[in-house]
Amino acid sequence: MEQKKVAYQVNENSCEFFNNQVDFCVGTGRMGLALQKAYQEQLAMNQAEIGFKHIRGHGLFSDDMAIYQEYKDPEGNVQVEYNFTYLDMVMDYYKEQAIKPFLELGFMPAKMASGDQTVFYWKGNVTPPAKYENWQALVQATLKHLMERYGEAEVLTWPIEVWNEPNLPGFWKGADMEEYFKLFQKTFEAVKELDNRFKIGGPAICGVDDVRWLREFLEFCEREKIYPDFITRHHYMFEKPDFDGHYTYAPLRNPWETLEELKVSRELIDSYPNMKGLPMHITEFNTSYSPDSPVHDTVKNASYIAWQLSHMGQYSDSYSYWTFGDIFEEKGVPFTPFHGGFGLVANGLIPKPTFWTFAFMKSLQGTCLKCSDELTLVKTEEGSYRGIAYNMCFDKQQVLNLTLELEAGEETEWCLCTKLVDEEHANPLKVWHDLGEPSHLNKEQLKLLRGVAVPYVQSKALQAKDNKVTLEMELLPYGLTWFEVKPVHCRSDRGFDYSRAVQ
Amino acid sequence: MEQKKVAYQVNENSCEFFNNQVDFCVGTGRMGLALQKAYQEQLAMNQAEIGFKHIRGHGLFSDDMAIYQEYKDPEGNVQVEYNFTYLDMVMDYYKEQAIKPFLELGFMPAKMASGDQTVFYWKGNVTPPAKYENWQALVQATLKHLMERYGEAEVLTWPIEVWNEPNLPGFWKGADMEEYFKLFQKTFEAVKELDNRFKIGGPAICGVDDVRWLREFLEFCEREKIYPDFITRHHYMFEKPDFDGHYTYAPLRNPWETLEELKVSRELIDSYPNMKGLPMHITEFNTSYSPDSPVHDTVKNASYIAWQLSHMGQYSDSYSYWTFGDIFEEKGVPFTPFHGGFGLVANGLIPKPTFWTFAFMKSLQGTCLKCSDELTLVKTEEGSYRGIAYNMCFDKQQVLNLTLELEAGEETEWCLCTKLVDEEHANPLKVWHDLGEPSHLNKEQLKLLRGVAVPYVQSKALQAKDNKVTLEMELLPYGLTWFEVKPVHCRSDRGFDYSRAVQ
Amino acid sequence: MEQKKVAYQVNENSCEFFNNQVDFCVGTGRMGLALQKAYQEQLAMNQAEIGFKHIRGHGLFSDDMAIYQEYKDPEGNVQVEYNFTYLDMVMDYYKEQAIKPFLELGFMPAKMASGDQTVFYWKGNVTPPAKYENWQALVQATLKHLMERYGEAEVLTWPIEVWNEPNLPGFWKGADMEEYFKLFQKTFEAVKELDNRFKIGGPAICGVDDVRWLREFLEFCEREKIYPDFITRHHYMFEKPDFDGHYTYAPLRNPWETLEELKVSRELIDSYPNMKGLPMHITEFNTSYSPDSPVHDTVKNASYIAWQLSHMGQYSDSYSYWTFGDIFEEKGVPFTPFHGGFGLVANGLIPKPTFWTFAFMKSLQGTCLKCSDELTLVKTEEGSYRGIAYNMCFDKQQVLNLTLELEAGEETEWCLCTKLVDEEHANPLKVWHDLGEPSHLNKEQLKLLRGVAVPYVQSKALQAKDNKVTLEMELLPYGLTWFEVKPVHCRSDRGFDYSRAVQ
Amino acid sequence: MEQKKVAYQVNENSCEFFNNQVDFCVGTGRMGLALQKAYQEQLAMNQAEIGFKHIRGHGLFSDDMAIYQEYKDPEGNVQVEYNFTYLDMVMDYYKEQAIKPFLELGFMPAKMASGDQTVFYWKGNVTPPAKYENWQALVQATLKHLMERYGEAEVLTWPIEVWNEPNLPGFWKGADMEEYFKLFQKTFEAVKELDNRFKIGGPAICGVDDVRWLREFLEFCEREKIYPDFITRHHYMFEKPDFDGHYTYAPLRNPWETLEELKVSRELIDSYPNMKGLPMHITEFNTSYSPDSPVHDTVKNASYIAWQLSHMGQYSDSYSYWTFGDIFEEKGVPFTPFHGGFGLVANGLIPKPTFWTFAFMKSLQGTCLKCSDELTLVKTEEGSYRGIAYNMCFDKQQVLNLTLELEAGEETEWCLCTKLVDEEHANPLKVWHDLGEPSHLNKEQLKLLRGVAVPYVQSKALQAKDNKVTLEMELLPYGLTWFEVKPVHCRSDRGFDYSRAVQ
Repeated sequence: MEQKKVAYQVNENSCEFFNNQVDFCVGTGRMGLALQKAYQEQLAMNQAEIGFKHIRGHGLFSDDMAIYQEYKDPEGNVQVEYNFTYLDMVMDYYKEQAIKPFLELGFMPAKMASGDQTVFYWKGNVTPPAKYENWQALVQATLKHLMERYGEAEVLTWPIEVWNEPNLPGFWKGADMEEYFKLFQKTFEAVKELDNRFKIGGPAICGVDDVRWLREFLEFCEREKIYPDFITRHHYMFEKPDFDGHYTYAPLRNPWETLEELKVSRELIDSYPNMKGLPMHITEFNTSYSPDSPVHDTVKNASYIAWQLSHMGQYSDSYSYWTFGDIFEEKGVPFTPFHGGFGLVANGLIPKPTFWTFAFMKSLQGTCLKCSDELTLVKTEEGSYRGIAYNMCFDKQQVLNLTLELEAGEETEWCLCTKLVDEEHANPLKVWHDLGEPSHLNKEQLKLLRGVAVPYVQSKALQAKDNKVTLEMELLPYGLTWFEVKPVHCRSDRGFDYSRAVQ
Repeated sequence: MEQKKVAYQVNENSCEFFNNQVDFCVGTGRMGLALQKAYQEQLAMNQAEIGFKHIRGHGLFSDDMAIYQEYKDPEGNVQVEYNFTYLDMVMDYYKEQAIKPFLELGFMPAKMASGDQTVFYWKGNVTPPAKYENWQALVQATLKHLMERYGEAEVLTWPIEVWNEPNLPGFWKGADMEEYFKLFQKTFEAVKELDNRFKIGGPAICGVDDVRWLREFLEFCEREKIYPDFITRHHYMFEKPDFDGHYTYAPLRNPWETLEELKVSRELIDSYPNMKGLPMHITEFNTSYSPDSPVHDTVKNASYIAWQLSHMGQYSDSYSYWTFGDIFEEKGVPFTPFHGGFGLVANGLIPKPTFWTFAFMKSLQGTCLKCSDELTLVKTEEGSYRGIAYNMCFDKQQVLNLTLELEAGEETEWCLCTKLVDEEHANPLKVWHDLGEPSHLNKEQLKLLRGVAVPYVQSKALQAKDNKVTLEMELLPYGLTWFEVKPVHCRSDRGFDYSRAVQ
Repeated sequence: MEQKKVAYQVNENSCEFFNNQVDFCVGTGRMGLALQKAYQEQLAMNQAEIGFKHIRGHGLFSDDMAIYQEYKDPEGNVQVEYNFTYLDMVMDYYKEQAIKPFLELGFMPAKMASGDQTVFYWKGNVTPPAKYENWQALVQATLKHLMERYGEAEVLTWPIEVWNEPNLPGFWKGADMEEYFKLFQKTFEAVKELDNRFKIGGPAICGVDDVRWLREFLEFCEREKIYPDFITRHHYMFEKPDFDGHYTYAPLRNPWETLEELKVSRELIDSYPNMKGLPMHITEFNTSYSPDSPVHDTVKNASYIAWQLSHMGQYSDSYSYWTFGDIFEEKGVPFTPFHGGFGLVANGLIPKPTFWTFAFMKSLQGTCLKCSDELTLVKTEEGSYRGIAYNMCFDKQQVLNLTLELEAGEETEWCLCTKLVDEEHANPLKVWHDLGEPSHLNKEQLKLLRGVAVPYVQSKALQAKDNKVTLEMELLPYGLTWFEVKPVHCRSDRGFDYSRAVQ
Repeated sequence: MEQKKVAYQVNENSCEFFNNQVDFCVGTGRMGLALQKAYQEQLAMNQAEIGFKHIRGHGLFSDDMAIYQEYKDPEGNVQVEYNFTYLDMVMDYYKEQAIKPFLELGFMPAKMASGDQTVFYWKGNVTPPAKYENWQALVQATLKHLMERYGEAEVLTWPIEVWNEPNLPGFWKGADMEEYFKLFQKTFEAVKELDNRFKIGGPAICGVDDVRWLREFLEFCEREKIYPDFITRHHYMFEKPDFDGHYTYAPLRNPWETLEELKVSRELIDSYPNMKGLPMHITEFNTSYSPDSPVHDTVKNASYIAWQLSHMGQYSDSYSYWTFGDIFEEKGVPFTPFHGGFGLVANGLIPKPTFWTFAFMKSLQGTCLKCSDELTLVKTEEGSYRGIAYNMCFDKQQVLNLTLELEAGEETEWCLCTKLVDEEHANPLKVWHDLGEPSHLNKEQLKLLRGVAVPYVQSKALQAKDNKVTLEMELLPYGLTWFEVKPVHCRSDRGFDYSRAVQ
């Protein structure tokens, strides 16, 4: 196999731009699923290892959440009442997991809707409200209830986004732009009337006709003097797919090209003086936009996403991986544990390779010394070097040989720790395949797959030379490794001699 | 490095002797330590993964258990009372963990003792009782209490052993053989008087002057017509050691020679017609007999013990590894997490390589097809092959290449699963060393070491050829691998194509 | 308030009929809800304290379980496939909780149905299958899958019931009796074809036109020589209700009259020689048949059910309380924690008074000495007396004074333990009312209500006189008390004097 | 029984002094016991319900903690080394439970001691160090290690106390005052040399010859210009006791008189201008000073301590109940679960009545409106009234009738919640006695006693009249009740009618 050799020297003047927002937000299946035990376990696994700050998904107002209710009073008039029983159960759990909602207002309660068009297996109604005042009342009542239960100060830190991907006719009837702007305006007014300090944004578009939509949205905001607190868009990287049975296949797009789209959005926003510098949140991103794309479960996905996490912060203020787990029903209930779902965690509580991309990236806190196509490296406050190297292999498979020369100062003894994810490590999809792709895992298989789904942890003693410490790493195609290089001051216990121990 | 190549064909006529008693019993630090949280966590880890049936250790009657008490009555006479508070706490925990005691009666309560000689940092009194009737009353009261609390039928399944290593003057004053026989006889009578169905045995000797001791003991039994229900001895495999600071170093003995000692004991017992075939329990075994021998924490230990576990059953009915965990104070409190303790689990709840030897061996249930110097292999009831291969490297370091040819019958697709332990896998000692041998682990180090301390799990698809399925394994020096070979009937979900997924 | 005085003498000849099947089966909200965390916690609370053996509910084949699926093959033909992902998740949880399903086959998957009539807020389709062969294939595929996953022997112990309350037009289109018999026959044949050892029954009728339905069903069985393995019916005790807002109110029926209905069913079955003695299972019972009847949450319910549990076994082989918990959506999502749901446990994991009726009744194992309108009493194997006394107050409120004289044999010292449930004890509904009926409980309120929701435990020393021990109990209206009377042999510790301690 | 009637009106001008330091510190059995599972469970129960900030006990330097070690180097010279393995385990657990040590420096490591006098069953050495420089080095090494592991800023918040009760010859050889002052001075210098910001105090005296000791200590401090950061003393309230078998009995002292002693200490300190206002910490208090006094387990103790907690803050800055749990070995291992131990929690994890005194008192945060011989009452920030009423019955048994009239403002509907502890509520000792005082609890008994050991929670709706809300409470002798009075705004769900529900 071809070799790609890269060597970097990093010294005290090195400094590169890297906006690490890996933990700002994560996507989720519809809110009603948050009542499920398996959902909660998968979220807990994410929070224990990664610790996201916000969570965003669809279905807040969909019928299974049961919030909007109507009844006839004794005079026969239709009256409205709200039921926050399930909402509280969901929000209580989020609070328990120290994660805050990034509220997406949608979809439409069937009883309030103007039509019966729905999206997804779980039938979210995607038509405008029959009466906008009912919608406004619902939004206000919901926010008010949340403030009563969780405190004003807390709820004001929850961003609010209006609807999801209105630029697609599947998500918003007719992809009717004017109607969306009306929805945005009505919602904006209702929210700000309740409390002016709320942060609210849109238009939550995906990458279809997105430039036109964004421009029109910004024009509308200028025209109506409705200045959103942030702008949102989505970011997927899949070529036009093939379909086969339950599954969707396609190559990944050129990553540098995908990044360019974000740049275009950013520059468009900044071209409006009143909106220049507004935060831009990517409220969804992933490789494929379909929850039945086997690529999601692969090591390839993990390294591709590592590259994206290293670079997206250049143009956006946050980016929310779609989604944390595989309890998800948009295309129906999956038939097998590995089925190309969006999740970082597969059903059965098995972390996928990309889970580790996030866990690794989370630890990169400090001064960024390098952010390239092969690695991101920071120096921590404590003086260690920490990084992720990834062999993304976008257009051809090759082995990556990476040499890093780091400043060692006065320290002579160092320890390199690595955590490896590749074809043969932390790759449960492969083992599941070798086991015959069982659709229903028994206890033994579950235990085996969980045992497989952990990075390979290694350490190595390094010696500095001429005030430099040098490390060499080799990564198989799509391989990904976390590493840390720390000075070591060995204080052996009296009489302990490692070399005699292992003799 | 030198290569050792071994190839075996196993067919339906293969059948070897292998008496798998890996889970019959395990050793423990003194009973008083069983009150500790860390002790309980380590035992729980053993039970979850291995599931021992019995547990044996010292100190049932030592002062920290507080069982034997004296006081003066109003007339000034010394009276005896028993305190079973701690005993119940320990036994309740054992019950919770589904492990039964293998009761070792000892050491002597200080107030009942004839002298003040003690053993260990924790000062177990090793002198005979001042009055044997007090000892007999204590034994009976204790057994009676246990029967009341845990049920007669249950307590009768707990074997009873009289004292520990009386052939060493450190453990029994003067290694006084006649006095030990007296103790045995008095105890035997007290126990059988309480309930004739109890199983009681001895002489619990270690390998010093052991042939003479065993012969004299058997003679004594014959002479006195006191027929024990089983015979016990210990089994260590360490050469004469060097000492340095807190530590003890020595090479391991030739394993085939150590086995010979067991054979001698076995044959000696069988030479007495009235005791022929009596169960022989090895109530302690390990490589080194000192809880400060770094070898215990190594991969070398793991493969050496794998060999022993494969072979000891030839001459003995059980063998109890000394010990399950590192909460242990015989030579004082250890200064560091890795300190050569006996335990399968290091302090900090980190499994050592030998822990996996036990976990792997436990799974070898079925018909033994091969039991050699390199592997033990069984065929399970479900029709899979399961085995452990070990590169023990007793006298020289070499790489082991192992080829196995197995009957495949009509099955064409197979899956090989392996779990590897070697220098670079499941070897926390090495990583701890590279980290600078920290004596006090912080949370991050603990998490890292626990992450390290797991076998490397891999799978591989195999194709049968001519009704045979062949596997090849390579093991580095001291490497150890569990493997399973199972037929696979792949039922891919509609449209799922693994090769497209990972393309 | 009026007093009701009752005194019983119980001696060695006392013996009454009491068929304690309190733990045989319990009802549940639709199966899809079993995925929820709160559902699982409520079930776990039931299992920890009561330990039901079976669980029965609706919705196995409803769309949210996602089992029955159709798709078009490349040729455009509709094909069927089954998805057991959620079914396994539910059954795995039941297994974890050591509870077995009492399988109710229903309702109809929308795609397989002949019509679109639905029942409940959650829209269970209640029309016959469009093609019976599809239904038969579904039943067989599901049972086959369960046998593969959980083992043949195990699944054969799960009773199978065909549909639910076909005698109501809301549950079975047109309450079409002939169509139900067809469904029964087709299902019976499919199940027995798969494995003749399955136990299958019906007709799962409620008390509307029930005598006619049962007679016709038995006639049909005779005629077609389809002998079911058991007969099922339901048992509710509510007068014709009033409705107000979300709630349903009505008085409870005369309990002796309700019992009479069971007797009629029992005698009807026994009048058919081929079915005489067939087990009759009450697969649902409760006071009200509506999940919004505040009576369910009261102490009144607890004592009324105590009477029923004491008497129902006379005519039936089991009786399944509808339901164990308040995660339930038949009339929508409840607005408040206490809302008259069927559950033994309220949302927020708060046991209701009737929960304790079950917990108390579960402990009545032994020889029944008394089973009356005020109490049920057994003598346990260990020689203690155990009972429940209840002041059911069906037609008027009165205080119950109960005197019991029990044989004491040679024992002189006894201890009476009681656990009381009444207006002021274990009655969270009252406290919730006093708190202002909050619809959303905060943590403090939750803790308070859980603290309230426990019986009041008391003990009392009793002295036997003339070989009799006598106890007197007073119960407020609707009060309920568990009691145990045990001989005591006090062995005070040396020097301990309780009277000095509390002086 | 006699009645004591008390009525209080509390209005907006009411304000009384009440220094609520109930959670500042709690006592513990010797530090080595903190390794035990049962100890940890008991502490966790305390922390969950009460949440103490500090914990203080003996034995930091005693031999079972294994900190101070000596060995001979190859030249035969004695060298010192420190072992912090167990110390870290204990401190890690304290950190996990969010409790900080109040460090008591003592007792003497046997190897460092000048004599062999010991105290307690567990043999703490109470002699001065053979060489004070060894003691100083030990103190510094220990503090230094703690700072390394837990952070400087954190460890500086841990108060340091020198030794325990040196005014008793049992705790300090000969109760040698001059020697104690030397110890204090040497320790003070060592600690302040390490970091001047440490807070250090003494003399930790109990109430024997305490005025003289305190005066001499303050004189010494003045003379040597060693100004401690705080003063410590103990506070017990037991008359001269009788002994019987394992137990110690005596009446409690007049509580007003005991308080007077604290006042004397306080005034003595304040009479020294350089030490005026120095914090005075009561580092131990309880009724009896012996861990075998049955009074500790009684309801009497609970109400007596309630009075003390209400009043002690008048003269002291904190007061540390001796002790949180019954894992404690000063007079040996207890024979029975209830044995008059100091603990708030009995062995078996059963809270004693006094546990609730602490839990109740903890909730009294707000402005104190009343602090009397019968109750302490605060108004919380949220506007509710919260209090504890106690019928201490010091010199004669009487029923307490308490009437409280509180300002209601505009609120008309109120809810009174009470939690009662008395002879028949939350009193496991009585039930255990009635059960025959079993020395070894089986599972059923444990469950029963835990079920007993909870306060009786009740609620009651109150109506304000003339802007006042009035409550009346009756307490049996030694009874204790927590209460809260809160305004209620009932928002009944649509159609819900409580009176119909319970009709």
